[in-house]
Amino acid sequence: MDVFIVSDVGGTQIRVAAYAVDSLELVNQKKIPTKSKNQLPIERLISLIKEVNADSSIKAIALAVAGYLDSDAGIVIEAPNIRGWNNYPLKDLLNNEFSVPIFMGNDANLAALAEWKFGAGIGHSNLLYLTVSTGIGGGAIVNNQLLLGAKGLGGEFGHTTVLPDGPLCGCGKHGHIEAISSGTGILKYVQEQISQGKSSSLSALEKISGKDISQAARQGDSLAIEVYQRAGFFLGIALANFVHILNPSIIIFGGGVASSAGDLIFESMRNSLQNSIISPAYLDNLSITNSRLGDEVGLKGALALLVTQFSPNLIEQI
Amino acid sequence: MDVFIVSDVGGTQIRVAAYAVDSLELVNQKKIPTKSKNQLPIERLISLIKEVNADSSIKAIALAVAGYLDSDAGIVIEAPNIRGWNNYPLKDLLNNEFSVPIFMGNDANLAALAEWKFGAGIGHSNLLYLTVSTGIGGGAIVNNQLLLGAKGLGGEFGHTTVLPDGPLCGCGKHGHIEAISSGTGILKYVQEQISQGKSSSLSALEKISGKDISQAARQGDSLAIEVYQRAGFFLGIALANFVHILNPSIIIFGGGVASSAGDLIFESMRNSLQNSIISPAYLDNLSITNSRLGDEVGLKGALALLVTQFSPNLIEQI
Repeated sequence: MDVFIVSDVGGTQIRVAAYAVDSLELVNQKKIPTKSKNQLPIERLISLIKEVNADSSIKAIALAVAGYLDSDAGIVIEAPNIRGWNNYPLKDLLNNEFSVPIFMGNDANLAALAEWKFGAGIGHSNLLYLTVSTGIGGGAIVNNQLLLGAKGLGGEFGHTTVLPDGPLCGCGKHGHIEAISSGTGILKYVQEQISQGKSSSLSALEKISGKDISQAARQGDSLAIEVYQRAGFFLGIALANFVHILNPSIIIFGGGVASSAGDLIFESMRNSLQNSIISPAYLDNLSITNSRLGDEVGLKGALALLVTQFSPNLIEQI
Repeated sequence: MDVFIVSDVGGTQIRVAAYAVDSLELVNQKKIPTKSKNQLPIERLISLIKEVNADSSIKAIALAVAGYLDSDAGIVIEAPNIRGWNNYPLKDLLNNEFSVPIFMGNDANLAALAEWKFGAGIGHSNLLYLTVSTGIGGGAIVNNQLLLGAKGLGGEFGHTTVLPDGPLCGCGKHGHIEAISSGTGILKYVQEQISQGKSSSLSALEKISGKDISQAARQGDSLAIEVYQRAGFFLGIALANFVHILNPSIIIFGGGVASSAGDLIFESMRNSLQNSIISPAYLDNLSITNSRLGDEVGLKGALALLVTQFSPNLIEQI
């Protein structure tokens, strides 16, 4: 049997799955931690691929990678959470082991492709996908194609400035939407407000987690409620910017914060989106919804990339 | 001879031109004011088309319109500067006179298409066009296609929020880049600062024009210098947002402010773009340049729309 091998390579986990080329049925799937004392991430990736694909013939490999890539050259320009993957010739290193076509993409971009091909975005020609978790990432489908730009660096929605001189972002710049509305941004704001003397049930905790904040908000803690409203307010402004540019018919949210605290964020987000948009025509028939693919979105995105390359019509049949 | 009829319908002028279908040579061209005491804009447009095309056979008509359009339906949703053009069935009204295919697009979107086909953007698959004049408009080419979105409302770059609670925009919202860095935004800031007692050579003038401000800046007036630097600073932030999303290989500026005061704005714009971008990879080989088509960009955009429809290969030959 011929299989497609797909992998989602993140800072925490490496996932690998094998799908039958002719039916797109799942054949095998495994995940392991990315970090290990004795092995480099590339060694772990290669051995996991071999483990997942014991007997079959590999037709092609695709990888969703948490980083900036030169997809055509197969080089990881920067993957902040994967040790040593800076200007890293990932494709060449894999080709030394597997003499098959290898494709790769940024994980959030491929998540957009996954939702479009297999998930909540089926049938939408213009789609925006945003993942709100530790950081904020995203991807877009424009006219039935993945938005990549000149060098494949497009679709970087998390680093949109919404508040010049605002909080410091993980990237070192200020006021990006990721610095305000991501899990990290939400936690930082809570810590900052508590250290400035704001009263909150959370100030009793030694270490605050995202779960603590969402629980506190549901129990009526005013600081916790405020931080989600603030996250939603700025997210709505950012969304209006994206919608003015891309005019999508669907916006899909993924990521831990969106799934665990979406109800605390989305109302103020929708209000602020409505207040920031220049014409209601942009919002008529615009769906705002959650990811359907959950944890599998990276693998499915890599699979979508292969399907697009090798059997664009297959997906219509299954 | 068969001709393409193209028109640029703005709030001030209606331009119409006829181009030979087989060679794309200009056959005839005229312009008239949009407003008139005795005629509606549609009457003026129809009579100008008849005047420009006295003898030839019209193969198709395309219009670049200053407004939000439902291009597929041929309806002008809103054209703030053209009297009566709200939910206006422009295509049907023209088809009553001319039984030929009729196409239309937003003027700034078509300007992007024009620069891509005929102007500064030839050969670039991912292009951003921005016009900085009374307002700020724009358009983008993504993977060799005009960025339109689900309803053709995409590419609305001027209403990107860069400063929440910032100055009021012409659209009624606050803090859009148009409210800060357009000619209108620049003038308003100068007037505001003068009324707050800021000293400037401009305060002696009864009525201040854009030309007055750029002259004052060139003569060393500190308020005039500041207002352009401020415009450039926020324009750079907006550009970084656009570049993160679209990753273009060229940004083309058109419009009166860009051409008359570009030198006063662009340095601070480039600095702020550089300071706001998350990776220098976005700026490597990114050209930032001026429009090559000037006043003709609307007509050329409408022509590009027809060429794309009817003779996509012709353009490579001429």
